Amino acid sequence: MIRVGIYGYGNLGKGVELAIMQNADMECVGIFTRREPSSVKTFGAKVYSADEVENFKGAIDVMIICGGSATDLPVQTPALAKNFNVIDSFDNHAEINNHFSRVDEVCRTSGKTAIISVGWDPGLFSIARAYSSSVLVDGKDYTFWGKGVSQGHSDAIRRIEGVADARQYTIPIESALEGARSGFNPEFTTRQKHKRLCYVVAKVGADKERITREIVTMPNYFEPYDTEVNFISQAQMDENHSKLMHGGFVIRSGKTGINGEHNHVIEYRLKLDSNPEFTASALVSYARAVVRLNKENLVGCKTVFDIPPAYISPLSAEELRKKML
Amino acid sequence: MIRVGIYGYGNLGKGVELAIMQNADMECVGIFTRREPSSVKTFGAKVYSADEVENFKGAIDVMIICGGSATDLPVQTPALAKNFNVIDSFDNHAEINNHFSRVDEVCRTSGKTAIISVGWDPGLFSIARAYSSSVLVDGKDYTFWGKGVSQGHSDAIRRIEGVADARQYTIPIESALEGARSGFNPEFTTRQKHKRLCYVVAKVGADKERITREIVTMPNYFEPYDTEVNFISQAQMDENHSKLMHGGFVIRSGKTGINGEHNHVIEYRLKLDSNPEFTASALVSYARAVVRLNKENLVGCKTVFDIPPAYISPLSAEELRKKML
Repeated sequence: MIRVGIYGYGNLGKGVELAIMQNADMECVGIFTRREPSSVKTFGAKVYSADEVENFKGAIDVMIICGGSATDLPVQTPALAKNFNVIDSFDNHAEINNHFSRVDEVCRTSGKTAIISVGWDPGLFSIARAYSSSVLVDGKDYTFWGKGVSQGHSDAIRRIEGVADARQYTIPIESALEGARSGFNPEFTTRQKHKRLCYVVAKVGADKERITREIVTMPNYFEPYDTEVNFISQAQMDENHSKLMHGGFVIRSGKTGINGEHNHVIEYRLKLDSNPEFTASALVSYARAVVRLNKENLVGCKTVFDIPPAYISPLSAEELRKKML
Repeated sequence: MIRVGIYGYGNLGKGVELAIMQNADMECVGIFTRREPSSVKTFGAKVYSADEVENFKGAIDVMIICGGSATDLPVQTPALAKNFNVIDSFDNHAEINNHFSRVDEVCRTSGKTAIISVGWDPGLFSIARAYSSSVLVDGKDYTFWGKGVSQGHSDAIRRIEGVADARQYTIPIESALEGARSGFNPEFTTRQKHKRLCYVVAKVGADKERITREIVTMPNYFEPYDTEVNFISQAQMDENHSKLMHGGFVIRSGKTGINGEHNHVIEYRLKLDSNPEFTASALVSYARAVVRLNKENLVGCKTVFDIPPAYISPLSAEELRKKML
């Protein structure tokens, strides 16, 4: 049995606990929280204070760290790698190489193994980009996100005065998807690839026109996109917009032949009812790889690019060849 | 520069020569043929007799073997692994573990590295199945092929008396694709998943009704499917059916949540103008992995499941993290 710890218990941590229950070769040793442990209700796993985590050295094969990328993971992952094999879903693309270096340095000293930036983007989408571009050398990549809930954009709307609640959906534009699949390698502007659909609950008496204006003109978040704003009641919000759905597309089109006369399109698509639960499922499968690598004395920080598919599977190499090849 | 040899020069070997030309870190040292070398016209690479291949020991980093799976590869891959790192596209699913064992045994003695069964199915489709099933543990896989030309089925029709030429397209049935994507994990019969579309050139005076009957009742090949037979002229065949297009879909749907209340769908799709050229492109990217593995003294037979995505990419680990993660 692989003994797993969960560090942090928000939506992602809950998803990890559920995913461990789906994997017969794993057990959850404990959940570590910065909150008062008795206040945390789980699906069955024991809860401990984050302060106690060092006492579990040697009793946990891999720690799945479920903090946020902005301020939690840059501190937590290197700190925990001193005593544990670790895995996280660090998703701040611009900071990945810095995060990688920090974690790698700790692991080289502690003899532990880490995999960072596991999930679907970064994660499975990154893998799709790497495979496709390696096979179709002369080609072009497209990544589309959605239809799905963007927490960052929803939060940005909630910070506007007069907004009680908000949910933002990122939606890929169908004509751009078709263009990416066409094999003609078109170029798209930001506005041509995605649109933004917002559902907003206004506070009583709030100026809806001003709120709308502040949303659609918000730099970076909304201004570069066609943005639709709909005002709804809190009851409608709770009824229709509680699911954290997401997904997207990685499309590569490329040419082969003596004159590039043959087009090929590789498309990888995700359609997810629950973004945190799917991300958690990816983390749990890669937690298996962390343990296997460390057993083979492959220490240091890794990413999904460094992991053979066989290492994340519960099947043996022979079973994989028989059932999946 | 990675020095590549090509063993066998049919459609696949030609595709490999073209794919090497797209990869700046590779050069084709020579093509080895069982035909009279002077009779073989290439896109530029030198041609040698297959009998000479042992003279190239030490001058070739990896041999890409482009023979057929039925009788060529079971002999050629183990034989060439005595002197070369090798890669093939062995696609006889039922025989893969036997082929693996034979090649592995030779490699363990010779100190060479092999990767077998590279292409898209087996190959990229196998990888898609492995990743998806490892992440979505509680789910179901679907593989659909087409629309594409099946050489085996086309050949089967050509063997019927009175047939001058034939081309068979395998076509996935749209309603089954939609069912696989629905998240409800339906079961399909063979007939519900694919249909077969045949174009036949009959010899002068041949009995078309008999030919049609012999096709649609052919066990295994056509009887389990809805099959449509169209008679056309040789000119129409040459004009409209010369492209070796293919492709398909690997779809996995799975559930997460405390009561499996969240559905997720992972879909991997290929749409290929030229089946042999795309297969060749996959072989060439994995040829890079063969060479890297052997430099690290990782000898023996491998499959795509054993290869980290980074090993097939021309980019360095740091570039991959920066550009693709």
